[in-house]
Amino acid sequence: MRYFIQVAVCAFLASASVAARADEWRTVEPENLVVMDVTYGRILIELSPEFAPNHAERFRKLVRAKFYDGQSFYRVIDGFVAQGGIGEGDDKKTPEWPPLKAEFDRKILNDVVFTPLGSPDLFADEVGHVDGFPVGRDWKNGRMWLLHCPGTVAMARDNDPDSGGTEFYVPIGHGPRRLDRNLTAFGRVLEGMQYLQKLNRGDPTVESGVIQDAAKRDPIVRVQMAADMAKSERPSIQVTDTTSKEFADYKAQRRNPAPEFYKNPSPNLDICAFNAPVLRP
Amino acid sequence: MRYFIQVAVCAFLASASVAARADEWRTVEPENLVVMDVTYGRILIELSPEFAPNHAERFRKLVRAKFYDGQSFYRVIDGFVAQGGIGEGDDKKTPEWPPLKAEFDRKILNDVVFTPLGSPDLFADEVGHVDGFPVGRDWKNGRMWLLHCPGTVAMARDNDPDSGGTEFYVPIGHGPRRLDRNLTAFGRVLEGMQYLQKLNRGDPTVESGVIQDAAKRDPIVRVQMAADMAKSERPSIQVTDTTSKEFADYKAQRRNPAPEFYKNPSPNLDICAFNAPVLRP
Repeated sequence: MRYFIQVAVCAFLASASVAARADEWRTVEPENLVVMDVTYGRILIELSPEFAPNHAERFRKLVRAKFYDGQSFYRVIDGFVAQGGIGEGDDKKTPEWPPLKAEFDRKILNDVVFTPLGSPDLFADEVGHVDGFPVGRDWKNGRMWLLHCPGTVAMARDNDPDSGGTEFYVPIGHGPRRLDRNLTAFGRVLEGMQYLQKLNRGDPTVESGVIQDAAKRDPIVRVQMAADMAKSERPSIQVTDTTSKEFADYKAQRRNPAPEFYKNPSPNLDICAFNAPVLRP
Repeated sequence: MRYFIQVAVCAFLASASVAARADEWRTVEPENLVVMDVTYGRILIELSPEFAPNHAERFRKLVRAKFYDGQSFYRVIDGFVAQGGIGEGDDKKTPEWPPLKAEFDRKILNDVVFTPLGSPDLFADEVGHVDGFPVGRDWKNGRMWLLHCPGTVAMARDNDPDSGGTEFYVPIGHGPRRLDRNLTAFGRVLEGMQYLQKLNRGDPTVESGVIQDAAKRDPIVRVQMAADMAKSERPSIQVTDTTSKEFADYKAQRRNPAPEFYKNPSPNLDICAFNAPVLRP
């Protein structure tokens, strides 16, 4: 095992052993599962009607209208976001898809089971998980919201908070948490981030990263709702129960990593460095 | 500008305007500038002899011995790290490159100009920049160290802290700050992260992400020290002076982003979501 590298062995074997041990995994509803094909592979996205009901519903409708098929990821900034849709321009007006009211956050309601991470956070009073999604809470004002971690799916907009409706983006670098509650997050990538990472990049100093040569924009080949696919072709994916003992154990392992390797462990966890594991049954 | 997306306009135009306005940029020493070619493009890395003198010197020597040429990125975990070198195995012993003593951190010395970020941090008493590198400090014990942000270059190792010597890795997802002071960071990628993002991935649940089919490992085509290249071919790159008023202004803009877009700004900055800009003169 000379020079074999333990950097993440603990973290990722932990993840694998969670997968092996957990009794309860939630199968993602086909009505919330988006199947997006790009040239490099297939991306699976879970929509969150709980946190952004109107945006989730809009995205479903756009997918079913084949709105995105043949469009592109036209604004891709390395280390920041990949943004897809029809792009801008006078020829790109979409009166049939009017802007949506922002859903930056929602009321804390008792029917949503929130599992605290148990670590401080730089951007929210409290962070934790709801159904595998990374979530922030503000008790004083009774609000909760999805966080901008890598893989979060959110709606782009103009200055008006209520101006987004079709153009979506996914953070592909260090989680840009400063965007929390400033844009509407409505889902997360469960599988296939590596294919978003292969997308051609724009120059961030030119038109805020919009790829100027349209021929260099990677196409969105096809987007489908899993619910509309034939059962034999429909992907199925499960998410760890983030209220489970297994998930609590996983977090505890991260807090107390193998002492034979970690000489300076930190008791704090960073919510965005910590994905809820998924499984393909 | 309908549906034109302002998500990062502020951040990235700020970056561009820093580039346009700054009076003082540091040109990276050719003796510290590593030029790494992979199939997808060219990656520029700055070594930090200040923080890890022995590791920086070792890397330079390995490059000059053409150690990495024709080797591969054999362990690539999406959202975590890309790791390159010769890999493991009994046929991969390298007695001519013995393991190095860890350089996890160093003494705080007065000759190193540290510019505090001015935000709290989850992993260090204090964070800020030294010569464009993200750095943490512990005043009580008088130590400082390079942080594990996306693009940091560090040495992999076995359980023994003093067991690394040739195999390097680069975080390619959310900064894995839990690795700070547990492995030796000795440089950072200044340009070309998007090419590391294109590397083929391994399965994190199998042998901690080592790509099992050697044919699927992306090659490290060639690595050179800029100092050894003909002047006409040698790339030149500059890093913002992180002690400058311009850089302070950039941070202030991030703290007080355009109010016409940001309805819920956060006063805190996350050190890893915040790269010191670079310029190609």
